[in-house]
Amino acid sequence: MPGIGPRSAERIALWMNQSRDARPLEIAAAIGAAAETIRPCAKCAFFSIGPICEICSDPARNSELLCVVEQATDILPLERTGVYRGRYHALGGRIAPLDHVGPDQLRIPELLSRIDAESPREIILALGADVEGEATANYLADLLREKSLTLTRIAQGIPAGGGLESADELTLSRALSGRRQL
Amino acid sequence: MPGIGPRSAERIALWMNQSRDARPLEIAAAIGAAAETIRPCAKCAFFSIGPICEICSDPARNSELLCVVEQATDILPLERTGVYRGRYHALGGRIAPLDHVGPDQLRIPELLSRIDAESPREIILALGADVEGEATANYLADLLREKSLTLTRIAQGIPAGGGLESADELTLSRALSGRRQL
Repeated sequence: MPGIGPRSAERIALWMNQSRDARPLEIAAAIGAAAETIRPCAKCAFFSIGPICEICSDPARNSELLCVVEQATDILPLERTGVYRGRYHALGGRIAPLDHVGPDQLRIPELLSRIDAESPREIILALGADVEGEATANYLADLLREKSLTLTRIAQGIPAGGGLESADELTLSRALSGRRQL
Repeated sequence: MPGIGPRSAERIALWMNQSRDARPLEIAAAIGAAAETIRPCAKCAFFSIGPICEICSDPARNSELLCVVEQATDILPLERTGVYRGRYHALGGRIAPLDHVGPDQLRIPELLSRIDAESPREIILALGADVEGEATANYLADLLREKSLTLTRIAQGIPAGGGLESADELTLSRALSGRRQL
């Protein structure tokens, strides 16, 4: 398991076997139930217990905003910010020719049919700031240019709490070109 | 000296004393000359040999853009990006009440008289993304609101090359709120 080496594994195993607080049968049942019940949401591909996840089926969520992410796991940090109240769509990866991942392997047809069905006002591309993220953003921008919606991308720039001296040149040049009016 | 501990210092001293390549007298003269000749530029406070630095006296620089930084050293990473061709103004610090630094200790009167003399079209605040940077940006925004110029701030968001999983929550929420139309 990630982050658990042989020594930690031994400690956990002994604790499960010997501690009064440990409930190994319950833990085993919970892991088994999670493996059997958690499936990708049929709409957005986020982790879900039913066919449609809690975010997609929440009527309080703003259906006019659709945030496109690379992986379902990217939804977790965005949810932790607490500022986004729209819906998501996970592509299941990003365009990466060196890894032989092209647009055909991504959930792009599902994205297009969702846009037709739900008519969001804005699509927010929350893709990585690396080469593959750029390629995927450019591909989607070309694809969605004809649709009558606003297409945005999350900002690239200096991270919160940082000064200029800790930013690399590419980040600083993107922070300069993406400067915002006050 | 920063980054040079006792062992490195000994190695350098022995190299200066014993190596054929070492030119200790020239190095000593260069250090002495630099200490005597490098002064803050009278306009922008960047490192300068004459009264006015190379950037302020370069006629090829766009005088319509003025980039406000906290420290003169912040000009170095911005210059390394190679994308900015305007001028700079170093404040000599930032508003930090906990460190007893208020607006009075900063080169703000010099900034105002430069704006009156040079009438830049745009002021770019290239301040840090921490609490003190925010406070300084807000103070300057209030101060410059009446002037007929565009006031911008460099973007905050995910750094170049990074994915969503490596960004903290505050950075992600600023990347979301600062999203740009494609």
